[in-house]
Amino acid sequence: MRSGDKGSDYLLGIDIGGTKLAVGVVTRDGRVVAQERIPTQANQGPDMVIARVQELCRTVVRKAGITWEQVLACGVGCGGPLDIKRGRVMNPPNLPGWLDVPLVQTLEEAFGRPVYLDNDANAAALGEHRFGAGRGVRNMVYLTISTGIGGGLIFGGRLYSGENGNAGEIGHMSLNVNGRPCNCGGRGCLEAYASGTSIAARAREAVEAGESSLLTDLAGSPDAISGETVKEALLRGDALARRIWDETMEILGAGLANVINIFNPQRIVLGGGITNYGDLLFVPVRRIALARAMRPLASAVEIVPAELGNDVGILGAAAVVLERLEARTEVETHV
Amino acid sequence: MRSGDKGSDYLLGIDIGGTKLAVGVVTRDGRVVAQERIPTQANQGPDMVIARVQELCRTVVRKAGITWEQVLACGVGCGGPLDIKRGRVMNPPNLPGWLDVPLVQTLEEAFGRPVYLDNDANAAALGEHRFGAGRGVRNMVYLTISTGIGGGLIFGGRLYSGENGNAGEIGHMSLNVNGRPCNCGGRGCLEAYASGTSIAARAREAVEAGESSLLTDLAGSPDAISGETVKEALLRGDALARRIWDETMEILGAGLANVINIFNPQRIVLGGGITNYGDLLFVPVRRIALARAMRPLASAVEIVPAELGNDVGILGAAAVVLERLEARTEVETHV
Repeated sequence: MRSGDKGSDYLLGIDIGGTKLAVGVVTRDGRVVAQERIPTQANQGPDMVIARVQELCRTVVRKAGITWEQVLACGVGCGGPLDIKRGRVMNPPNLPGWLDVPLVQTLEEAFGRPVYLDNDANAAALGEHRFGAGRGVRNMVYLTISTGIGGGLIFGGRLYSGENGNAGEIGHMSLNVNGRPCNCGGRGCLEAYASGTSIAARAREAVEAGESSLLTDLAGSPDAISGETVKEALLRGDALARRIWDETMEILGAGLANVINIFNPQRIVLGGGITNYGDLLFVPVRRIALARAMRPLASAVEIVPAELGNDVGILGAAAVVLERLEARTEVETHV
Repeated sequence: MRSGDKGSDYLLGIDIGGTKLAVGVVTRDGRVVAQERIPTQANQGPDMVIARVQELCRTVVRKAGITWEQVLACGVGCGGPLDIKRGRVMNPPNLPGWLDVPLVQTLEEAFGRPVYLDNDANAAALGEHRFGAGRGVRNMVYLTISTGIGGGLIFGGRLYSGENGNAGEIGHMSLNVNGRPCNCGGRGCLEAYASGTSIAARAREAVEAGESSLLTDLAGSPDAISGETVKEALLRGDALARRIWDETMEILGAGLANVINIFNPQRIVLGGGITNYGDLLFVPVRRIALARAMRPLASAVEIVPAELGNDVGILGAAAVVLERLEARTEVETHV
């Protein structure tokens, strides 16, 4: 399968997000040959969105100058929860109205190619592991830090997805058992402090409680304070933004120390919009995480930025295909 | 190897603890044919302790009525940190003076049989997985809750031990980033609240702060309060003991909710002395953990007591042998 068989040497990577759809034709070594992005318009509901996904796929295959016979298989990354075994989407918060949608079957019938589905965080972890910051690493934890916090786990070079495909919810690790309420119903979760949404919410609360800050001026009103406003105020030396940021780094560093103590990974890869803060994030987070973690485990790990940037959705979805095919081959050759 | 080959159908399980040594001859299906336990007398240092381990092994092999040729291999469970690849013990807190001790080499030379070493928590996880409460489970997390809290991770039916053999330090997952200092140097770790040592310490602190309680009468003096004293006072309806216990269950439940969200396991197996509290522990811990964890993950998991009791050290050490031999076979048959 790996060589010869030149007829099907491309993968179609499909990234279904709450705000945008991205589709790309990808080679097995991770080169994006053609891609397209359009708004999801999730409010239109699953039928319309899936129709637009199909149209986008056909456009991209045409743009790449290949035939569908040259597409080995399609990979789909999509917000969870999913029923991966049955290929269904089970009402993700970012896709309203997707109640038990048979996405895999629908796309397989439309394209006549095999379709493999996984959640977006697992797909991104697989993409970074195969094509990005995790190449060649056996034990890796991937975290995406943006509006929410998701995670993916690679153990022994393979995705670990748990008993029903939901492992890696590191955003919902509580770091403060009586802390801030989280969307998941828990308290004090990493996501309740360190996601972009929570950074902005904590800044707004402080401003509304009367703390003086550049934040209101920069945003126009307390309601309009976003993660970007906090970053801007931080760069201008605002004391409140600095306090909010320092608290965020403390909790993110403590969260990564937990990840290190639990998984003893070789590499932690951090992606998502908040990691665009660069050294503002990586310098304190590394210092705090490595100081808090146990020594023999801290000495084994690197904490690095993701490498795939905006392509992570497409490349991650493509990596889902390769992971599934290889895992299947292993089982078949196994005694 | 599995059948035929009748000449070497026994395993020697060796458990080197800080307070006692246990050695047993075990069949491949987990029957303990003969065993012996003696105090470690760890203060005598490694040379004396290893000499006594060897003597104990010879005694047990004789007692089992087998020859050394019938011993397939020896497994050793020992407090970490270890250098598993080099078969060395690297200064565990419970074995003073064991600085880079070549335990595997020494025992192989003494017995002329292969020796496999792993840390006691991993060995116990392997023992429960193969012979106890985790039989047939693919994804399992084992926790031992006694003077400290250790963990072992079974993913896809195999031990996951991380980049340098130290994965599974769930006792050093922080649940309160600014909480109680922990022996590991961190803060707010699960072990800092829910180990037997910490339960007793928190009770002593409350008594010393002037709270009235049966605890002092039961123990004789505040200094003498132990985990057992807390249990006794709890059973007699003491309000302070109840508060300490409820707090412990809250934090242990939150810790298990994190374990569920991170690993999406099929089963969590709890062993160690504190789990002898039985329903006093399992009823509240299950309720709290399952309420805090995310729903699709909570629905996939069972939280159950360990089954091997006092034999876990010997059976766990024997299971280390079988795990290593099978993992090796897999690699060899792998393409």
